[in-house]
Amino acid sequence: MSHNTFGTLFRFTTWGESHGIAIGCVVDGCPPRIGLTEADIQPYLDRRRPGQSKFVTQRQEADQVKILSGTFEGATTGTPIALHIENTDQRSKDYGEIKDRFRPGHADLTYELKYGIRDYRGGGRSSARETAMRVAAGAIARKVLEGVTIRGALVCMGGDWIDRSRFDWAEVDNNPFFCPDPVAAARWEEKLTAIRKSGSSVGAIVEVVAEGVPPGLGAPIYGKLDADIAAALMSINAVKAVEIGDGFSAASLSGEGNADEMRMGPDGEVEFSSNHAGGILGGISTGQPVVARFAVKPTSSILTPRASVDRFGQDVEVLTKGRHDPCVGIRAVPVGEAMLALVLADHLLRHRAQNPDAPARARLPRN
Amino acid sequence: MSHNTFGTLFRFTTWGESHGIAIGCVVDGCPPRIGLTEADIQPYLDRRRPGQSKFVTQRQEADQVKILSGTFEGATTGTPIALHIENTDQRSKDYGEIKDRFRPGHADLTYELKYGIRDYRGGGRSSARETAMRVAAGAIARKVLEGVTIRGALVCMGGDWIDRSRFDWAEVDNNPFFCPDPVAAARWEEKLTAIRKSGSSVGAIVEVVAEGVPPGLGAPIYGKLDADIAAALMSINAVKAVEIGDGFSAASLSGEGNADEMRMGPDGEVEFSSNHAGGILGGISTGQPVVARFAVKPTSSILTPRASVDRFGQDVEVLTKGRHDPCVGIRAVPVGEAMLALVLADHLLRHRAQNPDAPARARLPRN
Amino acid sequence: MSHNTFGTLFRFTTWGESHGIAIGCVVDGCPPRIGLTEADIQPYLDRRRPGQSKFVTQRQEADQVKILSGTFEGATTGTPIALHIENTDQRSKDYGEIKDRFRPGHADLTYELKYGIRDYRGGGRSSARETAMRVAAGAIARKVLEGVTIRGALVCMGGDWIDRSRFDWAEVDNNPFFCPDPVAAARWEEKLTAIRKSGSSVGAIVEVVAEGVPPGLGAPIYGKLDADIAAALMSINAVKAVEIGDGFSAASLSGEGNADEMRMGPDGEVEFSSNHAGGILGGISTGQPVVARFAVKPTSSILTPRASVDRFGQDVEVLTKGRHDPCVGIRAVPVGEAMLALVLADHLLRHRAQNPDAPARARLPRN
Amino acid sequence: MSHNTFGTLFRFTTWGESHGIAIGCVVDGCPPRIGLTEADIQPYLDRRRPGQSKFVTQRQEADQVKILSGTFEGATTGTPIALHIENTDQRSKDYGEIKDRFRPGHADLTYELKYGIRDYRGGGRSSARETAMRVAAGAIARKVLEGVTIRGALVCMGGDWIDRSRFDWAEVDNNPFFCPDPVAAARWEEKLTAIRKSGSSVGAIVEVVAEGVPPGLGAPIYGKLDADIAAALMSINAVKAVEIGDGFSAASLSGEGNADEMRMGPDGEVEFSSNHAGGILGGISTGQPVVARFAVKPTSSILTPRASVDRFGQDVEVLTKGRHDPCVGIRAVPVGEAMLALVLADHLLRHRAQNPDAPARARLPRN
Repeated sequence: MSHNTFGTLFRFTTWGESHGIAIGCVVDGCPPRIGLTEADIQPYLDRRRPGQSKFVTQRQEADQVKILSGTFEGATTGTPIALHIENTDQRSKDYGEIKDRFRPGHADLTYELKYGIRDYRGGGRSSARETAMRVAAGAIARKVLEGVTIRGALVCMGGDWIDRSRFDWAEVDNNPFFCPDPVAAARWEEKLTAIRKSGSSVGAIVEVVAEGVPPGLGAPIYGKLDADIAAALMSINAVKAVEIGDGFSAASLSGEGNADEMRMGPDGEVEFSSNHAGGILGGISTGQPVVARFAVKPTSSILTPRASVDRFGQDVEVLTKGRHDPCVGIRAVPVGEAMLALVLADHLLRHRAQNPDAPARARLPRN
Repeated sequence: MSHNTFGTLFRFTTWGESHGIAIGCVVDGCPPRIGLTEADIQPYLDRRRPGQSKFVTQRQEADQVKILSGTFEGATTGTPIALHIENTDQRSKDYGEIKDRFRPGHADLTYELKYGIRDYRGGGRSSARETAMRVAAGAIARKVLEGVTIRGALVCMGGDWIDRSRFDWAEVDNNPFFCPDPVAAARWEEKLTAIRKSGSSVGAIVEVVAEGVPPGLGAPIYGKLDADIAAALMSINAVKAVEIGDGFSAASLSGEGNADEMRMGPDGEVEFSSNHAGGILGGISTGQPVVARFAVKPTSSILTPRASVDRFGQDVEVLTKGRHDPCVGIRAVPVGEAMLALVLADHLLRHRAQNPDAPARARLPRN
Repeated sequence: MSHNTFGTLFRFTTWGESHGIAIGCVVDGCPPRIGLTEADIQPYLDRRRPGQSKFVTQRQEADQVKILSGTFEGATTGTPIALHIENTDQRSKDYGEIKDRFRPGHADLTYELKYGIRDYRGGGRSSARETAMRVAAGAIARKVLEGVTIRGALVCMGGDWIDRSRFDWAEVDNNPFFCPDPVAAARWEEKLTAIRKSGSSVGAIVEVVAEGVPPGLGAPIYGKLDADIAAALMSINAVKAVEIGDGFSAASLSGEGNADEMRMGPDGEVEFSSNHAGGILGGISTGQPVVARFAVKPTSSILTPRASVDRFGQDVEVLTKGRHDPCVGIRAVPVGEAMLALVLADHLLRHRAQNPDAPARARLPRN
Repeated sequence: MSHNTFGTLFRFTTWGESHGIAIGCVVDGCPPRIGLTEADIQPYLDRRRPGQSKFVTQRQEADQVKILSGTFEGATTGTPIALHIENTDQRSKDYGEIKDRFRPGHADLTYELKYGIRDYRGGGRSSARETAMRVAAGAIARKVLEGVTIRGALVCMGGDWIDRSRFDWAEVDNNPFFCPDPVAAARWEEKLTAIRKSGSSVGAIVEVVAEGVPPGLGAPIYGKLDADIAAALMSINAVKAVEIGDGFSAASLSGEGNADEMRMGPDGEVEFSSNHAGGILGGISTGQPVVARFAVKPTSSILTPRASVDRFGQDVEVLTKGRHDPCVGIRAVPVGEAMLALVLADHLLRHRAQNPDAPARARLPRN
């Protein structure tokens, strides 16, 4: 993985800045003869799109995706698929405040130190706008992952967790938070309204789950499935932590408590009594659901002034006016799903290359 | 990153099984004319070596490293450096118990499902023995990272955290746990003795810190420094979670609480009031210390029988006799340090390639 | 190198089909703060553009390149540069002849066998139209290679070689063949007119030369500069052979005849008596001009019917009507230059990463 | 491809210097459950081994290969295969002549300019000794390529070509030149004896052919099979040119002459009237034999003094005493075969990953 490309066999390369002409990506390595039109991608983009509730940035983007190459008569051809979204909401404005000043917690400073030049308009390349292309590429990955279901949910906002006993995937689209617990969703609505009004922001934790993953995905030692998932999720804007299965909680368990016991099921498949491992052992999928969580920090674009410095080495105060996203973790849910899909699609192809006759289910005896 | 190679420019490839003839690695891309002999590597291996206290596996390995190529008259030549360690403790024993049975929580099952064949002796390729080569390669990475100090510590064992106010790097080598808090170390000694005697095991959390890292390391979007650190640490055996800076705690903070405010220091360098970000913004190092933590699950090699299955699709009970490691997290400390060093060395070269005139310190104005 | 991406640090990814909406590429890894606008790229595209003489295909494309990302206020920012060219000449026509039939010598058959689907319109992805993006990316590579001059010429057409004693770079743009020998150019004009009228085609040999290349580019053993040049040139449509320096002729020389003798020059730089090696020894540049040649086969799109088969497994006759390119080698000249530039830019960054203090000229003693 | 690793999915990494302790390689990505012991590799090493006739260097190396990892009970396990050969003939000698002087045509100068340090003993890393590991890795690639036959032959020595009408693979092992034409072999014996006695050297051309290659190998645009073959062969020591099929001769053909006409065969497979293309169209294999040739320059280690310079910037004369290889092209034959096998094995895995249901033969209709 390097620069702006993700993946090895199923790989994608993104480009574009927040306030440039357009953003886009190239998906390379997609198998041929998979049905694919814009209608397969657009719903995922619509789900991620800003401006849909008062809890996410009010930037208005149609985010209409166009497929520019790689398909013919509605199917993939095995050649690179170029996706393109025009930036329609490049509102002309005065960037005086952030042109030369570094917002604490933003990439402004590090881009300046690394490159000595940056497109400061709307965050330029470091803007979360780039994640639209991840969602678009993820929609293609889902088509490759036939039989695999990938879903995400916000499970904690500002330290306030959902109640696991009320976890219901069907609830996720019934509230503006991708929250699987309707009681928590009601609570969050109240809390986030207050935070938004005060010009503050709050962090969140997202959970993504893939069901129907075949066993065998993941290439030890430095292509482990969990290592690639960790990189994929950590690469999302504002993410500071990633865990698989029980994650940090596993560190508090005993060996007995952490063991996922096994028994043979009636159909010759291995059945597990639990899933502490999050569906991955030794870096390879077991066939259980792959479960990952990641933490999104609160955006530092807040109305309270913070001490900072500018490009010229002067002390300044910075506060961020304008469009405001009180909980950027919300929009990270579809992005997390997409990244999980992209890792799995890549590993499916890699696994197949080396192990063409490996079983699609965790059957024993294997042969 | 794929298969058994880690890194892009400063890269290493490991090979070998727990009970094979030897283990080894090839370090490729190391700059020339760096002083390097076995004496630069051996101390790190000695620090990781098993059998040094009753709290780690009693396997007796000399772990004497040999440099087989890539140096001339005590200095690197820019060509690949092959490192080699013989396996001396291949005790002849009966593997009957684990030959055909899958230990819950081990990679036994997934290797079988993926490959249909595995070297079951001592865990084969999935054994933590492989991490000796990471430590050896990491010692070379440290030489590349002149001026950077990389240290690690065990900060939590079985849910029992150190007291941050007593954190003292000097204490780390005064106890068998790499514990920076002498009070916690005493507590852990008692606890782990009991766990060991009961044949159980316990998880742990490791913290690794790099000081003196130049700003600018990390390549957005898919070569972010934190994404690569996440992959590197997650690739260590038994690791289930990784966080940077405040990590999961950041999700509970407000934007105000999470901001690392900045002021110009007397020498023209940016000074930060805090380091919630763990030294990385937008995937690029700030010049602050890079701070990461990772969770190690308890080993599933325990004396209590667990329900499992065998290769033939039969239900069985499994318990693991023999050499026992009650807290594998301890030995993960030097491995974590090594992986952090390896990521940083790779990114130092990558950064230099694209930005040869970038400043080594966070000075403003940049030029 | 894999799929549709070329290069490791300075890398580009192309996409698009001959008769799709557009073609494009993403150039990743370009150093920041290099002046770059469309005006730096367009002249190279104009030079390659079809339809400029009766000796190349009469397809009419404006080939107006647009930069969609990666620059700000006229300079590169270190982020990915997306280039875009609309396909304006997608003439509506009946593809009946080649829709189901495979032209001998074309990629039609192999795309069908590999993918089971193909965009047959104008050759789809296998069309030489893709090379426009190589030329565009190559223009950016040239900016990275400050002080290096890269030029190309057609040195042989249909077995008729130029006279080396008349080789004059200034002549290359004085004829429609990029021919450096005006006498040969006159001869070729006559010959190619006859070939074009008869509906036949002819092969050619292109020579590309880079002057001012610093010593030290190339990474032994599997990143040798000549190996990467060979791959780069062989990847151009219709190319069947590549040679460096004396190339195949070197196989007929004795050791004495092939040696490039050396003497110290007045300025402390090594001077060579000859350049049989083409500027590369052991896979690493010497500082002499890098010289490569490649052979372009005659296009198989000819008016004489050839025996072939169709998708349904039936024997058929194929002949190619329509726009006709009697010598595709002509348009390969700017493409060859671009590929050489792209390899050199990549290796310049790679060399710099590992050897930041290596000298820019072949000076001795080195330090 | 970069540094010392070749390939993407089936990849190998070599290490070691001519006069170091050992040389070795790591083969990564090999599919599991393939029978493999040293006996599968050793015959290929024996065939390449120096000292077998008076026409190759008299260095005496047993070249006994050891497999150190990656197999279990005689079969591959899918984990990295480490191969190891001790250097037994590190004859202690005075390197005074080449320690500080650069042999014209050798990599001595470029290693010095790039790295500022080099292991001058026997050529160090740039020695052809490294090719032993290519041959060893190639033997494993052959096992992956079940049903594919890969053979090589010397077809031209010092400008003296074989007679194609006498080409007989069975003759290749009947003479010390891998010559398929017994008449040419007799001629070469006489010529090379004279060259050897005079202390001179001569170049050669090698042809390698793979039969039974399935159609569909090769990934357009920048992973073309011919581009990767070109890089692979050009990476061999002393190689200056590579061609596929008719190669440079194709440049002299007309479109009619170059077309490989097709007809359906009785078994539903495409049959070709000729193989000008060398089995590759559009970078993808057709199912015909893959044919490549490469030119090996004469070694510059000759007894006639040549003008050169030394490390200190002084003009000197250089001549090479000691073990002498009058035609290094001879030993390049098994190396060329190995490189072709390694490229094909890598592409077989890559093809399978993206196109698991592609046909193994060139059948039409495809489905």
